[in-house]
Amino acid sequence: MSALSQSHLLGIKYLQPSDLQLIFETADEFYEVINRPIKKVPSLRDKTIANIFFENSTRTKLSFELAEKRLSADVINFSASGSSVAKGETLVDTVNNILAMKVDMVVMRHPNPGAAHFLASQVKATIINAGDGAHEHPTQALLDAYSIRQKFGKDLKGLRVAIIGDILHSRVALSNIFCLRLLGAEVQLCGPATLMPRHIESLGVTVSYDLMQTLQWCDVANFLRVQHERMDVKYFPSVREYVMQYGLNSQLLETLNKPITIMHPGPINRGVELTSEVADGAQSIILQQVENGVAIRMAVLYLLAGNR
Amino acid sequence: MSALSQSHLLGIKYLQPSDLQLIFETADEFYEVINRPIKKVPSLRDKTIANIFFENSTRTKLSFELAEKRLSADVINFSASGSSVAKGETLVDTVNNILAMKVDMVVMRHPNPGAAHFLASQVKATIINAGDGAHEHPTQALLDAYSIRQKFGKDLKGLRVAIIGDILHSRVALSNIFCLRLLGAEVQLCGPATLMPRHIESLGVTVSYDLMQTLQWCDVANFLRVQHERMDVKYFPSVREYVMQYGLNSQLLETLNKPITIMHPGPINRGVELTSEVADGAQSIILQQVENGVAIRMAVLYLLAGNR
Amino acid sequence: MSALSQSHLLGIKYLQPSDLQLIFETADEFYEVINRPIKKVPSLRDKTIANIFFENSTRTKLSFELAEKRLSADVINFSASGSSVAKGETLVDTVNNILAMKVDMVVMRHPNPGAAHFLASQVKATIINAGDGAHEHPTQALLDAYSIRQKFGKDLKGLRVAIIGDILHSRVALSNIFCLRLLGAEVQLCGPATLMPRHIESLGVTVSYDLMQTLQWCDVANFLRVQHERMDVKYFPSVREYVMQYGLNSQLLETLNKPITIMHPGPINRGVELTSEVADGAQSIILQQVENGVAIRMAVLYLLAGNR
Repeated sequence: MSALSQSHLLGIKYLQPSDLQLIFETADEFYEVINRPIKKVPSLRDKTIANIFFENSTRTKLSFELAEKRLSADVINFSASGSSVAKGETLVDTVNNILAMKVDMVVMRHPNPGAAHFLASQVKATIINAGDGAHEHPTQALLDAYSIRQKFGKDLKGLRVAIIGDILHSRVALSNIFCLRLLGAEVQLCGPATLMPRHIESLGVTVSYDLMQTLQWCDVANFLRVQHERMDVKYFPSVREYVMQYGLNSQLLETLNKPITIMHPGPINRGVELTSEVADGAQSIILQQVENGVAIRMAVLYLLAGNR
Repeated sequence: MSALSQSHLLGIKYLQPSDLQLIFETADEFYEVINRPIKKVPSLRDKTIANIFFENSTRTKLSFELAEKRLSADVINFSASGSSVAKGETLVDTVNNILAMKVDMVVMRHPNPGAAHFLASQVKATIINAGDGAHEHPTQALLDAYSIRQKFGKDLKGLRVAIIGDILHSRVALSNIFCLRLLGAEVQLCGPATLMPRHIESLGVTVSYDLMQTLQWCDVANFLRVQHERMDVKYFPSVREYVMQYGLNSQLLETLNKPITIMHPGPINRGVELTSEVADGAQSIILQQVENGVAIRMAVLYLLAGNR
Repeated sequence: MSALSQSHLLGIKYLQPSDLQLIFETADEFYEVINRPIKKVPSLRDKTIANIFFENSTRTKLSFELAEKRLSADVINFSASGSSVAKGETLVDTVNNILAMKVDMVVMRHPNPGAAHFLASQVKATIINAGDGAHEHPTQALLDAYSIRQKFGKDLKGLRVAIIGDILHSRVALSNIFCLRLLGAEVQLCGPATLMPRHIESLGVTVSYDLMQTLQWCDVANFLRVQHERMDVKYFPSVREYVMQYGLNSQLLETLNKPITIMHPGPINRGVELTSEVADGAQSIILQQVENGVAIRMAVLYLLAGNR
């Protein structure tokens, strides 16, 4: 166990268990770094990283940018609006141009599933997928698993993790399923039937449509965000129906005769997926997830740059 | 006098006279730094500062960013458009997320009066108010007072400063009044009655509706910007009426039998508040205000980071 | 030959042959730097550079930004949208304000021909023209000539370079003509009569309306980009007509009984100016142009900062 099995981070699907262990152990070191008074290390001082975001993103972009700066990399930000992409340039041309300027790594978010994979096959650079449509979002899954590991210890075998909400349109769900299964955890998906992908059980998960039943089963409940664009009466379930059936409030939480850990990738719709009492309560590790995000991204960048 | 009395800079209202002296003396040192060939100091090398601007701002944002970079801080910029704020996230959640990424200080501009104050009560970080609606804009008031001090010496007691224009909608006026009164200067407000707040005299200022009379009274005249969105015939006074009654041109300036110092927070509407002759003339210290802005902001950031 | 003859880079028109040699030789050194593992030098560590872009630009802006960062300068980015320019501020006021914050050099793109020249006459800073309307784009011409020199050797006397496309609306054509003529190359312009400026022969170039004839004449063919806004049936020639008469595909390239070097300033409209086979083929040096852009811009910034 001395290097990642991959030269890109396109999805959790391509990783080995040993990759996860290496990433987590490296993140442990960077977690200490970012909790010191001096939060910077010179590791990537000779690297240039381009953050190419073809979709809006606040926290993922900020988290990567901070991770890069704390590794002392030079950072170039590129967003689709107002760029040559708007002039009709192809993705490969755009990225090849950036690479010709001697950029070492590309962090990319793109609305199309498979965009990162396609790019990695076409250009000569290390590609890190920061979300490709509703497909994978590997660093989110890594930080989620790392946060669970921080709470429950290094061995997640048999731990019961529920992923709750709009599984179908989530870029977080699939990566989380791959990652948690690889670590030996049991995974249950819970949400409205209309937002549940078909044949998803083939990935080794169970499916439930009943929140109470899922909460009674699980040790950890990861609530996915209701997409803003779906908050319209034309959808079924409507937000009101969704809250009634899949929203968590503190009364419901107290009816369980055990503590469960509450997670959310953010941004939270307060009063929809979680009430404020739950989101800010003692069982929530939501802000810890955000903090761990920087450590995980530092680890991924560091390892893909050829270190360790 | 060894530390600020406050752990945030929310408004001039909360500062003591000794705070102002400490800020000005620290700014004196940084003023020398930014006028050296090497304009950088390592003071905040281990700090990360987030600039969170929920409203457009060119010069305030650039000035803070330069101040931060010259202190060697790591800088993260965040604007409301295209962010999770657009996805309906609350201000406190947005800022808590940024803080979870180990940000030390937040510089925030927000359209709502009191936003900075509210934030400081809710999150664990040093907050610097870069303008909250028409309420306070403390670093502007500090740089204005610092510019006057640079011109007239350290003791401003009895100096006569006029603030001229749309007092009602200005985020600069209130902070300037607090700051100048705290320093012992006399303040007169001058502008159309429709743009003058009621009961403003309770702050220890006099009010005039006659520009000529105010100019004859004052040593310094600080002309506020006419807001672009008010440049519409539906307003009273119209821009044309405003220019005739409250605009300054060089003929008017010469009819005074004494020199007065001309200030403006920018950006200037040339031909409205001031003609170009006046704005660029020998009595104007407008560009000096901009230069001092960087020194003042360096001082504020440095002191709030726990230095001195 | 120890310093540039100019204190700004406003256009190739103002440069001497010795300036070009100095820039190219300096770029040779920086070309080596950016191809090392450690691509950074401390040369401009005490300088602050503002990139002021009043028009969208991806690659020029990124290229300048990378050049500045690799020289260790502090970089401030300023775009027209959402700025005080939108509030009606004049260009000179905007730039004077930025300069009052102790900025040393200004890199500016502006839609108006002559904007950089006007600015240099009004403000006290080193101005680098990154494109002023359809007038000059000197760093593009320098990187183009540098790329040709890299391929054909230091002496370009008698080398035949064709510039093909919409000469009339191009900001690249004029700078290229000045630069190549100064270096002793022969230049032929080729394009539709409606997109050819009148009396252009007075600059010492020949004009052709026949692509085949031009390709048979030249050693190097530089294909200009068809402007996106002209891709409308209302224009003559239409894009379809343009492709048929002035687009290059591999069949056409093979009918020539000699190799020619293919250039394009980007972004390419694949299938319009060039087919993908040609753009990505062995005779294309398009990505080399992009790479050289960073070295050339480093050289220009370094020399104008008063070095060598």
